[in-house]
Amino acid sequence: MSASTYKQLEQEFRRLHAFRGALSLLRWDAAVMMPRGSADVRGDQLAALETEHHALLTAPRITRLLDRAQANTQGMADWQVANLREMRRQRDHAIATPVSLISRLTKATSRAEAQWLEARRQGKFELFAPCLEEVVHLIRDKAALLGQALNLAPYDALVDEFSPGITSADIDSMFKALARRMPGLLREAIALQETRPLLPLGGKFSASKQRAISVEIMKAVGFPFERGRLDESEHPFTEGVPGDIRVTTRFDQDDLFSGLLGALHETGHAMYDLGLPQDWRDQPVGRDRGMALEESQSLLMEMVICRSRGFVRYLKPLLEKHFGGTGPEWSVENLYAHLTRVRRGLIRVDADELTYPVHVMLRYDLERQLLTGELAVKDLPAAWNAGMEQRLGIRPANDVEGCLQDIHWAVGSFGYFPSYALGAVIAAQLNESLRSDVPELDEQISRGDFSGLFGWLRTNVHSVGAKVTVHELMKAATGKPLSAISFVRYVESKYLEGAASSAAA
Amino acid sequence: MSASTYKQLEQEFRRLHAFRGALSLLRWDAAVMMPRGSADVRGDQLAALETEHHALLTAPRITRLLDRAQANTQGMADWQVANLREMRRQRDHAIATPVSLISRLTKATSRAEAQWLEARRQGKFELFAPCLEEVVHLIRDKAALLGQALNLAPYDALVDEFSPGITSADIDSMFKALARRMPGLLREAIALQETRPLLPLGGKFSASKQRAISVEIMKAVGFPFERGRLDESEHPFTEGVPGDIRVTTRFDQDDLFSGLLGALHETGHAMYDLGLPQDWRDQPVGRDRGMALEESQSLLMEMVICRSRGFVRYLKPLLEKHFGGTGPEWSVENLYAHLTRVRRGLIRVDADELTYPVHVMLRYDLERQLLTGELAVKDLPAAWNAGMEQRLGIRPANDVEGCLQDIHWAVGSFGYFPSYALGAVIAAQLNESLRSDVPELDEQISRGDFSGLFGWLRTNVHSVGAKVTVHELMKAATGKPLSAISFVRYVESKYLEGAASSAAA
Repeated sequence: MSASTYKQLEQEFRRLHAFRGALSLLRWDAAVMMPRGSADVRGDQLAALETEHHALLTAPRITRLLDRAQANTQGMADWQVANLREMRRQRDHAIATPVSLISRLTKATSRAEAQWLEARRQGKFELFAPCLEEVVHLIRDKAALLGQALNLAPYDALVDEFSPGITSADIDSMFKALARRMPGLLREAIALQETRPLLPLGGKFSASKQRAISVEIMKAVGFPFERGRLDESEHPFTEGVPGDIRVTTRFDQDDLFSGLLGALHETGHAMYDLGLPQDWRDQPVGRDRGMALEESQSLLMEMVICRSRGFVRYLKPLLEKHFGGTGPEWSVENLYAHLTRVRRGLIRVDADELTYPVHVMLRYDLERQLLTGELAVKDLPAAWNAGMEQRLGIRPANDVEGCLQDIHWAVGSFGYFPSYALGAVIAAQLNESLRSDVPELDEQISRGDFSGLFGWLRTNVHSVGAKVTVHELMKAATGKPLSAISFVRYVESKYLEGAASSAAA
Repeated sequence: MSASTYKQLEQEFRRLHAFRGALSLLRWDAAVMMPRGSADVRGDQLAALETEHHALLTAPRITRLLDRAQANTQGMADWQVANLREMRRQRDHAIATPVSLISRLTKATSRAEAQWLEARRQGKFELFAPCLEEVVHLIRDKAALLGQALNLAPYDALVDEFSPGITSADIDSMFKALARRMPGLLREAIALQETRPLLPLGGKFSASKQRAISVEIMKAVGFPFERGRLDESEHPFTEGVPGDIRVTTRFDQDDLFSGLLGALHETGHAMYDLGLPQDWRDQPVGRDRGMALEESQSLLMEMVICRSRGFVRYLKPLLEKHFGGTGPEWSVENLYAHLTRVRRGLIRVDADELTYPVHVMLRYDLERQLLTGELAVKDLPAAWNAGMEQRLGIRPANDVEGCLQDIHWAVGSFGYFPSYALGAVIAAQLNESLRSDVPELDEQISRGDFSGLFGWLRTNVHSVGAKVTVHELMKAATGKPLSAISFVRYVESKYLEGAASSAAA
């Protein structure tokens, strides 16, 4: 009886999985292929499918089946029990937000996104402010309802949607550790880099050659082009499902690395998705364990692996082959210096490994204050600029390079930003264990052999799916609770390497 | 009360329209962008959305609302009343076929499609035969159920799905007229063309130049690239919705015309869809009036317009610009001779204007015999070959160029073939009225001005949507009932032009 109940649930969620795959393809197409003028049509299609997905997930039948199945899980495999828990999680999240609120949010965020674009075009925050205010109000309602239903503080409920099992207490403790060490480290690293020569990499780097290099490396990494694509879009992203995965990047002729690193960041996401447990691909327990872990996989690839000497040794002959670069500026050391250059910059998406968490922490503080009402929307620009000055010592000349730079708040993604910094923290902690378990990693990678890297990640991260929490996964994978210790150790040793008196000592 | 009931129905069908748009995009992607290995994933997504679409359309709520709204249509606009009729039509078709039969058909046709490909690869019909047998059985069941529900003969019920309002009596009477005249006309046309020189157009024609010409002409025609795309695929097709329309073609370096004509054939479909009544775009009454009319629009473009002297005069300088062709083989007369060349060939998709209906009539006879059981699946190859010999005087050397050439039966599209020939018949009848109403048409087109053509089609065909039947539409547009008379007149005057004693006289 319970077995057949469970089977029925699997069947229902298989259908929901297919819906989500279709939605993902519609989004991919909108960003990569769709003609400019067709956004309204696509909006209707996405709304129809999302509404139906929500209706199917919150149907009384699902609740009945879940109640029955969870009442007696004796004799069920642990993957099945975990799958029921994740089904319930998805259903609880969906049902906590009434359809009327979802529909108001959809409309408000679509208005806000349009006004955000316009405000950026004109450089006028005040054009965006009323829309943002509306979004903040609705998200506040949503957070309260979600929090009540999930028995979490409102902000934690928002975080839980993106990164299940992560609380603001977790975030606070890690951000505190970072805030203690990063300002000093940043100063020291910049001072150190200023003492070292950096030969410029000038010239034009054709997009087709950049693409050829990206494809070659993605193939070496194991990206399955027979079941995946690499395309170009305004911002890099990953969509699709493990059987049909689509990554994008954006090639800049004046920048040798940004397109490649964008592609490899997304390849990190894709490899995680592809490594998720095969047998549970279309079930909730077979999904990724949230955005913090997703970002850990993309950042491990982009920041830790691709900005390592081993990778640069592998990359150098590829650059020679495609761009014919042979002078001293193409030496491993100079390429490595470019890839690890630290700069105090205003724009998050252009930030390096050291300043990136600082950008995220500012947004984390501000978005919580916006939601509590402590910070009024109209005061956001001033608070942003003061925060940048205080944290990085630089001040935006305008709101386009200030509080208008990210789309997240316009589209209602409050509680998302922390996952970027948590991803870096998780990546560093995984990296420590990975290197201790696979000591020959650097040498492998310098030969273009990524099997040690992904073998370890498959076993310890990818194949776990959503079976356990992030905390349990990290404990099992690294033997230690999740903390920022490894990240601080990692950036200190990387960015103070060779310093006369290293603070890492 | 009735007004609000009607509004609710509009809302429901708006959602169904969005579902169909999403399904269309998933199919487009599968044929144009999807990696080879991802067919299984896409199959699951299509099945999930189709099942849900069917469930929504056949929900008791829709029937209740329809019963209530149709019980009292007093005071409703005629478009609304027609919309209710079309809603009912869609619902009746959907509900007549039980989900269990649909699901058996889906599985059987997906097996049959795979075996059809394999049978083609190996040149062995017997590999395909058992699967086709299964499909024929299921289609027979479907036809019986549909026929019962719609009060139509079984085969007519299948035709009605593709071309509403067309019966086998209509088809028989038109095909009889064609069968009477075409064999003789074919002989005379070929004999006449043999007396005239045809200078070959040799060389390679790069796909990118062919594409550039296609895009230039499509722009002149009015195809909206800001809300549409032209791509390449194995076979040309049109997908999408009027706000985001996607046509494909296939460029062959050895063939100057096939890619361009494929693109313009599909542009004919697209222009029809784009001309459908704006206010009813997301409602059943705003849809095309079936496949026969769809094909009339694509064939009018590809066969009637693009194989006319006016069009060739417009095309010649474009060919000169892109391919530099200036010799006598690039004269208007020689290009026109190429575009109107008649050949007895084995392959339907390569057939010219005169032999095409002959191909269709053979399939029409055979598919009806298969469904009644008069013809056993195992005897199909022999019947096909005998039919080709009798009708065109040529005999396939194998089944790949015989009864294995089309995918239609494998995927269960019985009742579809007639629409190709009906499309040609409708196109010719529209063309006659069009030329009488717009006498300067040929001259306009030779200048690349398609406004007269599409102005007339918009008014008389496109903007009618599904408000009336094909028969009513043809009567209103041409003043005459639908018949093959215009087609015979058209091909006689075109293909016996300049003959010593024209049978057209």
